[in-house]
Amino acid sequence: MTGRDGGAELAPIEPSPVVILVRPQMAENIGAVARAMGNGGLFHLRLVAPRDGWPLERAWITGSGAHRILDNAEVFPTVAASVADLHRVFATCPRPRHIIKPVLTARGGAAEIVAIGARGLRSGVLFGPERTGLDNDDIACADSLIRYDLNPGFMSLNLAQAVMVFGYEWWLARQDELPMRALQTNETAPATKGELDNFMDHLIRECDASGFLKNEQKRPGMVRNLRHFFTRGEVTRQELNTLHGIVSELVRGRKK
Amino acid sequence: MTGRDGGAELAPIEPSPVVILVRPQMAENIGAVARAMGNGGLFHLRLVAPRDGWPLERAWITGSGAHRILDNAEVFPTVAASVADLHRVFATCPRPRHIIKPVLTARGGAAEIVAIGARGLRSGVLFGPERTGLDNDDIACADSLIRYDLNPGFMSLNLAQAVMVFGYEWWLARQDELPMRALQTNETAPATKGELDNFMDHLIRECDASGFLKNEQKRPGMVRNLRHFFTRGEVTRQELNTLHGIVSELVRGRKK
Repeated sequence: MTGRDGGAELAPIEPSPVVILVRPQMAENIGAVARAMGNGGLFHLRLVAPRDGWPLERAWITGSGAHRILDNAEVFPTVAASVADLHRVFATCPRPRHIIKPVLTARGGAAEIVAIGARGLRSGVLFGPERTGLDNDDIACADSLIRYDLNPGFMSLNLAQAVMVFGYEWWLARQDELPMRALQTNETAPATKGELDNFMDHLIRECDASGFLKNEQKRPGMVRNLRHFFTRGEVTRQELNTLHGIVSELVRGRKK
Repeated sequence: MTGRDGGAELAPIEPSPVVILVRPQMAENIGAVARAMGNGGLFHLRLVAPRDGWPLERAWITGSGAHRILDNAEVFPTVAASVADLHRVFATCPRPRHIIKPVLTARGGAAEIVAIGARGLRSGVLFGPERTGLDNDDIACADSLIRYDLNPGFMSLNLAQAVMVFGYEWWLARQDELPMRALQTNETAPATKGELDNFMDHLIRECDASGFLKNEQKRPGMVRNLRHFFTRGEVTRQELNTLHGIVSELVRGRKK
């Protein structure tokens, strides 16, 4: 089922979603992910805090020709930094734990990513570390969850396999793409995750200052819930400006 | 994207197609295939002439909990022996080379396998060795080809990834299954591959005896083409009996 085709020709097929590996552990798995990305026509790889640093020579060995994907991989210290320039973020997650976010299948997620791309927006998909998967703070950075429809009696899904199934669905979804699906009637643009983060920082700083988050034990959960709420819909720049304004105004009123 | 679920509960979901690895080379890949099979709800694994013999301890390590699949794997000396009790055989093959057989996508193949299973018939899917893939003689044992819809610019598909994509599609196809799809109106049953093989042996023996296959150089290709022809449709037992009869009769006539 393999061929001798090298990866010298690998290049981004735009608009192409970003594959984000959160705290990946094994170099071999990162290489296998790159290979699976090549199969699915994906190109953009980001690594959040890889356990053993980066670059790692063994990744290029298991990458089996997907060198260009590995050569172009970007490293970020946090999930938030890795998604700052993206408009929509999906988290792969086998069992959502009390999280109020849309849950999509791999097929549904791929179709949505293609539709988002057709509007000129950028998407990313988070894949968690081997064994543990994404934690609640990681998932808080996502708009929607992708849950694979696979045998619930055997959930141990290899990282590269998870990326493979997504890449396969993305490749198929692109072929179903209707060119007229790109509709954006209003004047304002969707905010990037970095713009949303700016606002979240602003909001939380002021919440801290106000004493609203003073319970040290409850603070992390409350911050996460705030983030969940603000990422649930697609926020526009205009709306963010309004929200910034509201926070600033409220603070000004309280400080009087 | 992983979980700690063990594979202790893994059991066949019938009717479940057989995954047949033809001349697999690396124990690690066989284990990774078993893990992917667990994800897709597949259980029956057959190995044709594994390079390093069987069992191989390293397979149980990369199998990551899919022990029951590996424990139950069966070994065969030839592809023909591995498919003898099956009714329909599919060959995964990236680039069909001048072979006149139906070509399906992974999705189409999975749907067909579910429909075949609903009729009480058994299917198998052949996966070729790492690097080289299935050869022409292997493919001659199949009724149809499965060709994955993936990036043609990067064909190097890992063996376990190939099984993963198939298992994923099979799992999804099962859920679309219409219970009323099982229709078999005539009285005769489809022949198994072993029954067909009996006939092919009979036919070729007599072709050899007749001198029809006397050109040593052309013989392998001619035998393969005969096999292609007889496996293209679904042969029934009744038809095979008729064909046996024809061959016997023709021989008798010539021998007079």
